[in-house]
Amino acid sequence: MPQRLKFIVAYDGAPYAGWQSQAGGNAVQDHLERAFAAVTGAELRVHGAGRTDAGVHALAQCAHAVLPQRTLPTMQWPLALNANLAPTIRVLRCAYVRQSFHARFSAVGKTYRYRIWNDRILPPIELGRMWHVPTPLDGASLAAAGQLLIGRHDFAAYAANRGKPVASTIRTIKTLRVRQRQKSFEIEISGDGFLYKMVRLIVGALVRCATGRGAAREFRDNLDHPKNAHQAPRVVAPAHGLFLVRVRY
Amino acid sequence: MPQRLKFIVAYDGAPYAGWQSQAGGNAVQDHLERAFAAVTGAELRVHGAGRTDAGVHALAQCAHAVLPQRTLPTMQWPLALNANLAPTIRVLRCAYVRQSFHARFSAVGKTYRYRIWNDRILPPIELGRMWHVPTPLDGASLAAAGQLLIGRHDFAAYAANRGKPVASTIRTIKTLRVRQRQKSFEIEISGDGFLYKMVRLIVGALVRCATGRGAAREFRDNLDHPKNAHQAPRVVAPAHGLFLVRVRY
Repeated sequence: MPQRLKFIVAYDGAPYAGWQSQAGGNAVQDHLERAFAAVTGAELRVHGAGRTDAGVHALAQCAHAVLPQRTLPTMQWPLALNANLAPTIRVLRCAYVRQSFHARFSAVGKTYRYRIWNDRILPPIELGRMWHVPTPLDGASLAAAGQLLIGRHDFAAYAANRGKPVASTIRTIKTLRVRQRQKSFEIEISGDGFLYKMVRLIVGALVRCATGRGAAREFRDNLDHPKNAHQAPRVVAPAHGLFLVRVRY
Repeated sequence: MPQRLKFIVAYDGAPYAGWQSQAGGNAVQDHLERAFAAVTGAELRVHGAGRTDAGVHALAQCAHAVLPQRTLPTMQWPLALNANLAPTIRVLRCAYVRQSFHARFSAVGKTYRYRIWNDRILPPIELGRMWHVPTPLDGASLAAAGQLLIGRHDFAAYAANRGKPVASTIRTIKTLRVRQRQKSFEIEISGDGFLYKMVRLIVGALVRCATGRGAAREFRDNLDHPKNAHQAPRVVAPAHGLFLVRVRY
């Protein structure tokens, strides 16, 4: 009888073409599917909770695969998969789950973290792990603008087109926390789901606001009248500052 | 009249053959000397405070160069040098200093940080930035053993041979702090100077002790009778977990 394996996977986004399977075969999903093929001898599909873009990192992405049979004890799965993956992708833990579980459709919430370095010079050790914003940011305006986003809103103004239209652009942001520590900012956003590029568009708008180029009022306008939005210049924060932190079920 | 420029430089150790100039030209010093040549048109030598090994990172290495003349205002130096360097090396700030200043010989103290990930699986984002020690470490023994090293001692047992003999193997460790946070350890060591590979040999010995393979007593024996040391197996902690944090003058 086929078994369903849920697993938590972390990756450095830099070497990969994002999560979702690509013709070149260099997506995280492709590497995982090849690792499963090496372990089980079967071609199988891996389904992720969040289809992170190229360059986006994951501390704990969640995914599942349907196995032809229960091939290995739970504890041995991470070992077996990691032995067939580069160290920039690590399967952290696995569990057999009920047949109705789906990594993407069963998810009820996600948390993303966005990291910003706010000083003239980016420390080399943070290269590819932080967005380098040299213009001084006003922490208080950033935090205040962030608070306007919390709640259930139509986030159409903070979404990019992925090709097919989405059923609804209404999402709920549960928490948005800004942590400032010397020259760095960390913005952590939790919500029931996120539209395509939504976190990066929100961070871009927050940074615009915190450099005095945008007003907090714009957030309210964009959420209240999403159809009239897109008039202010939109900034997409770069992928390499974004981390998928957690998926909730 | 020649001018002496002191500068603080940060680098990711991974792409470089260490600090000290190498035949291949891929040492951090080589890259800095080429950047100075590009800016000034003159061949000049760069002197660093600490000759970090290949793979060792620096958050704030200190160095100096003797310039043929005062070519640029202080503020413009980082910009000019960074324009001629890869983003994995960044000059953070510069200052003109007295002729008697020497980055290496005027230094009165240094601080190093060593980072350890202590769990079965290393998060990909920490690859090349932490020593992965899967065996559980006992934080209390690690901290207790570290305390034995503080003070003025003969550290011959914690030194590797760099080729030429050193005048003295006596050094003073001023502070040694161990910070444990979930699955990570950070060991920060400050002292008046460090012998070749001394921090990595100390960390190797501390980890041996914290996994129950070495006794704290060994530290006392090694410091009291350095000539009889080297009997226990020596562990050199890998370069990529080590960060030069600060140089004091």
